[in-house]
Amino acid sequence: MLEAARMEAEAQAAAAPEKKTEATERRRKPGRPRKDGNHRETILNKAEIAFAEGGYAGISIRDIAERAGVNQGLIRYYFESKQQLFDEVYRRRGGLLSGRRHVLLDQLLEGGKPLTVKAIVRAYLQPQWDLKYSGEAGSAFVRLQARLHAEPEEHALRLRREVYDASVKRYVDALAKVLPDIPKRTIGLRMAFLVGTYLFMLNDLGRIEDLTEGKIRHISKDEMLDHMVEFLAAGIQAAVP
Amino acid sequence: MLEAARMEAEAQAAAAPEKKTEATERRRKPGRPRKDGNHRETILNKAEIAFAEGGYAGISIRDIAERAGVNQGLIRYYFESKQQLFDEVYRRRGGLLSGRRHVLLDQLLEGGKPLTVKAIVRAYLQPQWDLKYSGEAGSAFVRLQARLHAEPEEHALRLRREVYDASVKRYVDALAKVLPDIPKRTIGLRMAFLVGTYLFMLNDLGRIEDLTEGKIRHISKDEMLDHMVEFLAAGIQAAVP
Repeated sequence: MLEAARMEAEAQAAAAPEKKTEATERRRKPGRPRKDGNHRETILNKAEIAFAEGGYAGISIRDIAERAGVNQGLIRYYFESKQQLFDEVYRRRGGLLSGRRHVLLDQLLEGGKPLTVKAIVRAYLQPQWDLKYSGEAGSAFVRLQARLHAEPEEHALRLRREVYDASVKRYVDALAKVLPDIPKRTIGLRMAFLVGTYLFMLNDLGRIEDLTEGKIRHISKDEMLDHMVEFLAAGIQAAVP
Repeated sequence: MLEAARMEAEAQAAAAPEKKTEATERRRKPGRPRKDGNHRETILNKAEIAFAEGGYAGISIRDIAERAGVNQGLIRYYFESKQQLFDEVYRRRGGLLSGRRHVLLDQLLEGGKPLTVKAIVRAYLQPQWDLKYSGEAGSAFVRLQARLHAEPEEHALRLRREVYDASVKRYVDALAKVLPDIPKRTIGLRMAFLVGTYLFMLNDLGRIEDLTEGKIRHISKDEMLDHMVEFLAAGIQAAVP
């Protein structure tokens, strides 16, 4: 799409009175810079929530255009295709998550205290936990993750690999250092068990009420994290079969 | 739908040459009883594979009618709605799974040997494992389960509760007997962790290759089960936080 087309699309979006949404309103406030980043971010934010609600297949560029108060041409200007938009939504917040994991591991490694399995597991889980409870966008992303993990297709795998692998591998290395008697491939496998557990917990709280006969409804998010750290750290340190 | 309408629908299905599929072919073989169960089972079998491939939203009654080589009226005669068909698919194989879990637990309880956490965990996981590797239908059901678990809606929860709860609760009770120092609500919560881990493992083998840097590709299904039992049993027995 040419720059002229983008400008035309933006002009149309601004002119159409029925498209007057939060995004266009905000742009018009005095002192707010009118720049590309504004629209691009709005589209990403609205797409994140839309994909979380409807899944990749259930949401069209048109749906997102409506939610973002822009026309479809502008979305295609920034993201070419629905797949690219989805990927960018995933990369954006997944990247923040990976970054936070890196930083927490750095702090552990440089903290001078002896490394423990529990501390490493907690550092890995904490950012995902914080994200879930960070508001609408964070919890939308967590639902979107769950959906992506339920689609074991090549594309989904490639995206997750791109976003998460570097940080996960540093965690496997840190665990291998603390657990020299456990083969690294077993630690990698147990790391996969860990991912399964926390994804399920993040997404499936209704079911947990059932399995505990309603006794876990009032558990706080911190208690839940403590329980998970205890369980997973024990599993990671288990005897090798 | 009246019986006459069903017969008409069946007659149409049999008459239409373009609908001549595996199912109608099989029905015509000499000696094969022509009874309702035949069509009903065919519809359930085809629906199971279709839903696993396309998800609930992505598959219509029409798709299933085409795959089963029957007309839509016949499907509606047996199942009224798409939701009811889906539920019946889920109940049918989920019920077999729950039944198998009950039987394996019975054998443990009546076996005269002292109960162990590992034996209980293995009895719980084994039927799901066997199902995954039992052929096309079994592995389709496992994918369908993954999709259902990624949809934390009221209906999905109710269905899973109906199919699995009774057997899960017996396992929680058995674990509580072996682990008298761990509160039952903690055991229930750990049972939920266990469910998360095995669902992820059943569905996400591509990702596991990544997390182990390709080292786990050649692990056999029995080894994988051993690894999971070891990990989960250690987690279930962990100190209470």
